[in-house]
Amino acid sequence: MNDLRPPLPLLYEPIVEAALREDLGRAGDQTTDAVVPADATATARLVARRAGRVAGLSVACRAFTLLDPRVEVDRRAEDGEDVAAGAALALISGPARPILSAERVALNLLGRLCGIATATREVVAAVAGTGARVACTRKTTPGLRLLEKYAVRAGGGANHRFGLDDAVLIKDNHKRLAGGITAAVRKALAGAHGLSVEVEVETLAELDEAMSAGATAVLLDNFTTHDMRQAVARVGGQVRLEISGGVTLERLPEIASTGADAVSIGALTHSAPAVDLSFELEPAGP
Amino acid sequence: MNDLRPPLPLLYEPIVEAALREDLGRAGDQTTDAVVPADATATARLVARRAGRVAGLSVACRAFTLLDPRVEVDRRAEDGEDVAAGAALALISGPARPILSAERVALNLLGRLCGIATATREVVAAVAGTGARVACTRKTTPGLRLLEKYAVRAGGGANHRFGLDDAVLIKDNHKRLAGGITAAVRKALAGAHGLSVEVEVETLAELDEAMSAGATAVLLDNFTTHDMRQAVARVGGQVRLEISGGVTLERLPEIASTGADAVSIGALTHSAPAVDLSFELEPAGP
Amino acid sequence: MNDLRPPLPLLYEPIVEAALREDLGRAGDQTTDAVVPADATATARLVARRAGRVAGLSVACRAFTLLDPRVEVDRRAEDGEDVAAGAALALISGPARPILSAERVALNLLGRLCGIATATREVVAAVAGTGARVACTRKTTPGLRLLEKYAVRAGGGANHRFGLDDAVLIKDNHKRLAGGITAAVRKALAGAHGLSVEVEVETLAELDEAMSAGATAVLLDNFTTHDMRQAVARVGGQVRLEISGGVTLERLPEIASTGADAVSIGALTHSAPAVDLSFELEPAGP
Amino acid sequence: MNDLRPPLPLLYEPIVEAALREDLGRAGDQTTDAVVPADATATARLVARRAGRVAGLSVACRAFTLLDPRVEVDRRAEDGEDVAAGAALALISGPARPILSAERVALNLLGRLCGIATATREVVAAVAGTGARVACTRKTTPGLRLLEKYAVRAGGGANHRFGLDDAVLIKDNHKRLAGGITAAVRKALAGAHGLSVEVEVETLAELDEAMSAGATAVLLDNFTTHDMRQAVARVGGQVRLEISGGVTLERLPEIASTGADAVSIGALTHSAPAVDLSFELEPAGP
Amino acid sequence: MNDLRPPLPLLYEPIVEAALREDLGRAGDQTTDAVVPADATATARLVARRAGRVAGLSVACRAFTLLDPRVEVDRRAEDGEDVAAGAALALISGPARPILSAERVALNLLGRLCGIATATREVVAAVAGTGARVACTRKTTPGLRLLEKYAVRAGGGANHRFGLDDAVLIKDNHKRLAGGITAAVRKALAGAHGLSVEVEVETLAELDEAMSAGATAVLLDNFTTHDMRQAVARVGGQVRLEISGGVTLERLPEIASTGADAVSIGALTHSAPAVDLSFELEPAGP
Amino acid sequence: MNDLRPPLPLLYEPIVEAALREDLGRAGDQTTDAVVPADATATARLVARRAGRVAGLSVACRAFTLLDPRVEVDRRAEDGEDVAAGAALALISGPARPILSAERVALNLLGRLCGIATATREVVAAVAGTGARVACTRKTTPGLRLLEKYAVRAGGGANHRFGLDDAVLIKDNHKRLAGGITAAVRKALAGAHGLSVEVEVETLAELDEAMSAGATAVLLDNFTTHDMRQAVARVGGQVRLEISGGVTLERLPEIASTGADAVSIGALTHSAPAVDLSFELEPAGP
Repeated sequence: MNDLRPPLPLLYEPIVEAALREDLGRAGDQTTDAVVPADATATARLVARRAGRVAGLSVACRAFTLLDPRVEVDRRAEDGEDVAAGAALALISGPARPILSAERVALNLLGRLCGIATATREVVAAVAGTGARVACTRKTTPGLRLLEKYAVRAGGGANHRFGLDDAVLIKDNHKRLAGGITAAVRKALAGAHGLSVEVEVETLAELDEAMSAGATAVLLDNFTTHDMRQAVARVGGQVRLEISGGVTLERLPEIASTGADAVSIGALTHSAPAVDLSFELEPAGP
Repeated sequence: MNDLRPPLPLLYEPIVEAALREDLGRAGDQTTDAVVPADATATARLVARRAGRVAGLSVACRAFTLLDPRVEVDRRAEDGEDVAAGAALALISGPARPILSAERVALNLLGRLCGIATATREVVAAVAGTGARVACTRKTTPGLRLLEKYAVRAGGGANHRFGLDDAVLIKDNHKRLAGGITAAVRKALAGAHGLSVEVEVETLAELDEAMSAGATAVLLDNFTTHDMRQAVARVGGQVRLEISGGVTLERLPEIASTGADAVSIGALTHSAPAVDLSFELEPAGP
Repeated sequence: MNDLRPPLPLLYEPIVEAALREDLGRAGDQTTDAVVPADATATARLVARRAGRVAGLSVACRAFTLLDPRVEVDRRAEDGEDVAAGAALALISGPARPILSAERVALNLLGRLCGIATATREVVAAVAGTGARVACTRKTTPGLRLLEKYAVRAGGGANHRFGLDDAVLIKDNHKRLAGGITAAVRKALAGAHGLSVEVEVETLAELDEAMSAGATAVLLDNFTTHDMRQAVARVGGQVRLEISGGVTLERLPEIASTGADAVSIGALTHSAPAVDLSFELEPAGP
Repeated sequence: MNDLRPPLPLLYEPIVEAALREDLGRAGDQTTDAVVPADATATARLVARRAGRVAGLSVACRAFTLLDPRVEVDRRAEDGEDVAAGAALALISGPARPILSAERVALNLLGRLCGIATATREVVAAVAGTGARVACTRKTTPGLRLLEKYAVRAGGGANHRFGLDDAVLIKDNHKRLAGGITAAVRKALAGAHGLSVEVEVETLAELDEAMSAGATAVLLDNFTTHDMRQAVARVGGQVRLEISGGVTLERLPEIASTGADAVSIGALTHSAPAVDLSFELEPAGP
Repeated sequence: MNDLRPPLPLLYEPIVEAALREDLGRAGDQTTDAVVPADATATARLVARRAGRVAGLSVACRAFTLLDPRVEVDRRAEDGEDVAAGAALALISGPARPILSAERVALNLLGRLCGIATATREVVAAVAGTGARVACTRKTTPGLRLLEKYAVRAGGGANHRFGLDDAVLIKDNHKRLAGGITAAVRKALAGAHGLSVEVEVETLAELDEAMSAGATAVLLDNFTTHDMRQAVARVGGQVRLEISGGVTLERLPEIASTGADAVSIGALTHSAPAVDLSFELEPAGP
Repeated sequence: MNDLRPPLPLLYEPIVEAALREDLGRAGDQTTDAVVPADATATARLVARRAGRVAGLSVACRAFTLLDPRVEVDRRAEDGEDVAAGAALALISGPARPILSAERVALNLLGRLCGIATATREVVAAVAGTGARVACTRKTTPGLRLLEKYAVRAGGGANHRFGLDDAVLIKDNHKRLAGGITAAVRKALAGAHGLSVEVEVETLAELDEAMSAGATAVLLDNFTTHDMRQAVARVGGQVRLEISGGVTLERLPEIASTGADAVSIGALTHSAPAVDLSFELEPAGP
């Protein structure tokens, strides 16, 4: 994963800060403020309770330093790395109060992002050797798309478009309103400034129409494996060919073996279970 | 669910609006703008593909009317209601472009909230007849806590504290830094303005100490069923007694039968799979 | 005041920054920019013109360092400390321009917070030896609740709830709409997630009803001293008992001697006069 | 007060909305949501408990309609009007929940603004017949300057500059750093784009120097009445002459009679006690 | 211009609202508030003083209705339409104060956007009949990219990428750091999720290398006309070919005749002079 | 330009940060992230391609350090300085990625501000020796007024009012609605708190009326040179006299020679062409 590029702090810090404000509320951490001495220091071990793929470690740990810049974060793993159950991901040390007050926000972010990366890794492993890439969709958590797309990359997957504005994807509802695939593709090629124009097709006939109209990518929706192979043959590498719909872990190897360029799976971001994390703190002073 | 109270628009509209901005990006919906005529109208059916508990229908559909106030939403189900697979949840009608451009945001919100409500309902059913309530935790998605807590209520569950500022919860790390349970509880009672003071305990001895110190609620962490029963007996209804840790669907009936007041389950909010939804649009004009 | 805990910078810095923007407007400090050389340095003494209790010194002085991180603040007093008229609270040194441009914001914040702390201290002194605490209310300045509640604590007072969401307080208007005290308390106990349920009562009969219904705290509104004593006797320490309404400095010792747990006084935050401060600057260079 | 102009909604609505969010917190009004039926309606009378000058009635009542546009506000008084103790200021009717949830925010704003207007009116009355105006300063509550300056106008007073950017005011600290009054005034006249250049002077000699240097207004700081008269004579109506420092209600008539154009009083905004208000609600259905 | 699609209100309203706040400052329109009666009504004619192409009429006129929803805007021209000098673009009627207070913001926006559309139209006319499109760049005014890109479309031009995230454009500095064109293109194809990969080339040799490496578009920078023709021949329609650098109005017809797909001109957005507008108001009452 | 004062970072940093977010979009700089190694370092020369006056160098270069505080900016010119074509304005060195990702934002800001300063300088030169100042207007780019007003000062010009709230300017539309010049001026003097009251006049008769009514400044709109001289004579230095309307570079010397105090030119901010800049980067490592 040596080319995994984390998002810019300018883009992700507002997410972490908003999460802290959401948890702290108006009055802040009543428990910690009441029971932990102001001068107490501590070191906490952030540990993965189950094996998984790491994603978002720096992002999540920014919660601690945003709350108090004196906290130090010593990362023991890197995004994109596989860790065993029980592995320490980071040591957090410094004043005890901010460490405790930021804990839940950090864990909520990290557990979710590692969960997505781990689920993605599993799916990527299932298509290994086929040349097909695994891609996520726009079915992300509102407010977290930047980070969830990144977690998919940390899991070895690829990102489809980031939003409604950076690629054209003509779906069933668009076709009906535009007056058919040909009309839709032509309007899109004329109207969208140099963006890729992908068409979701449900039959081989639709595929042919999309290709004729000039689509630059196609998405096969709910095709049989047989028809997928037909589609790959017809497209002949001219445009990107993706598959979506009804993709289960069991069917994946077969689907991927059809020669498609990518398989799109919404569940990577909307339904991956979080990775369970523990946070064990050792008092260190004063 | 006749007393289910949805959040105030003042509190949830910023979440919906931010989700729209995240999806629209700088340039807006390139596909719809390019291929759908400006004067096209349509009606879309929002359908649950699997059976589940509804939550967040008004919240999610606000995406359509925030984008264009001319869109009309005709709800066919209510939050807190159980629907069968294939049930129509709402009809969305009006100008076609905003309906299409807001679709994904609405579905992302609704799928997630219905997923949480559905998972909660299942757990609530498992404890039926025991007197124990099912509660969620602070393990929520950053930015969505308000809505996820509401979805838990729609599923029949209860909400634990909303954040770090509205209740004291003394956990293991706090105990160590405060110099033990007794010291921690006393500091909390003195320092926190009329908030409940709950202590997470790991043994019956800790339970006794928490009770003596004046805790107003206790959370049994990773107790055996046998010890849970002991704890319920010792507490004798004096304070609220909750259970957390290692709670599986299989163990739930037994756990709930111990007489505890509530069972806390973080997975309700961090790992519930989304409910799959479809959005079928019929052109209506111009 | 050794356990006085100031708010987190993450929570109070936006207030200070907004105050600076409000004062600087679009074009900034026209006077200072025009008449003070860019390289001038200075040291300013921040002095209390009358005796009082300090509150918000770090918060207020953050105005200087937010405007220019090169400014240094040397605090000569601590929040919660009593100072004599003429006492220096802090020395502010560094580049002269930001020191002058932030002066008014710092003084506006500090004068108000010290005013609240000083008024609170006076009231707290009046109940000394009675066991009753002095509490503030939600009658705070819009936008400054966090800081004003803190100033009350610096004055030796306690905070009642921070807002509408962290405790239930059933007042007269709620009773009427809910169908009486009993109905209101029962609904609140069922519907509010583990929050304290306090009832404002106007007669001993209402007190009895609130207790029977299960209220966890009561607020006696406009009781005579005689009835207060009756109420304390009836409650018998079972729930928290607070007093509000018609509380004057003269009546306070008598009220506090009734055995109530707390006396609530809105005027602490809505009508405390500001402490007068001076800001004397000595040029230091260049 | 027929030319009293309230601030634009675009400018004051963010203040009201922020105040609502501050009070509602994350989870909203737990009491009202739990105990008041969703379909209850009511009418509330907003009443002044003591006589005073009205200010901010529309601004404060915007809290109700921001929370729910179905609430109707029937104003029974106007800003700038004097009302007797017990006077109804407005009737608020509609759905009961938002009326109750916005009550405290509306009262906090209104009580403060009426308090400032009432204090100003009293001071204005004390200078009646002298030709001197009463002006406020920048000693306002952080975040509320727009509204507090308006309340002063509602009380019959005038506003001094709104902030650091719309007028030059050379104070003692500026003089020292600029190298004297003459240097400061000349720099200000050259550097500030057509703004008035006022100088705070402490002696008649300083007054002369300020006049010679070209100041367009002067502020006499802590002058004796005798020296004020001298100053008025020397200035001879050429520039605006204001008085500040040590202005008590007792001294006011004498000060105003010196012939000064205005008297500046910071206490109008930083220390005016709030006007006490009551909010009595009659259930109206369903 | 029948397919010109204006931006969504959700995306452009924040720009208009921020512009109003910038002009109104803290205290609002002092002139209008002081001299125009509160009940005055008026109708204003918004007129183009010189011939030009209209862009942003609805966007700019939103300033009036954002300030006061009672103002009515009667558009007399459409975006994308050419108007003669002296043409009325809109009639604005309603309460006089908000009409006057929003005038400058509306005119500032409209003058700039019409200026860009008019400049674009002129350039588009110069390439008429050649098949080449005119495109803008990222050299837009900070904060106004959405609107300026729209104005270019209203002028008949096309938009290049909206920002750094929706297309890859490998420029000279990237080549050097990536180790050459081939390395850069390959990394981009592998790393960027389905985006077009355009390369800016300075020689025909670079063009060849970019094509071999798999670029999906090329941008010829500062080519002679002779070399442009060579480039068009070599590319043979396989990828999009754009021209930039040294493009003057005089050279345009010749450049466009080379067969390139598009000509990129930064000056359309960074240096187009504003269209002069007048705003004549007729009092209408009361 | 030794007294040119740049805006406070607190006021301009939000503009730079918003510009970065606008360019980076959701996903950041796809080109740089994909093709530039994470550990690459570089030094870039920021060069003016044509001669001009510098303005906004620190402001624009803040884009680099906001994106990554490790970037170092070595300024080689100062705001208010004239530079020759080809002059290096700054060297930017450090990690290559943020340098490239912030380049366009920095250049867009700097090119525009230098363009305004350069245009202003040219106009200022044309009035040299006349005693007249050159002033800008409120015809600025929405969102950039602070910086554009500063660029005018860097060009040697003066700023007229910053917005609607810091000076009264009675224009033609105000006169009609107020019932004439005299009424308007009197209302303004009474209603606006110590602000200058300027009147735009179109005839000498209007000038006389404005003077009689007490205006503190006058703006001659579209006067002939002959009438300007008459106006200057009548005003006799009593109030500030400005000229606007139909001011071309050719007419300027004559206009300025009339003895007016200032000439207002809107085109300085709304139509100045940007200064062309180049950004040449040398790889430096790793």
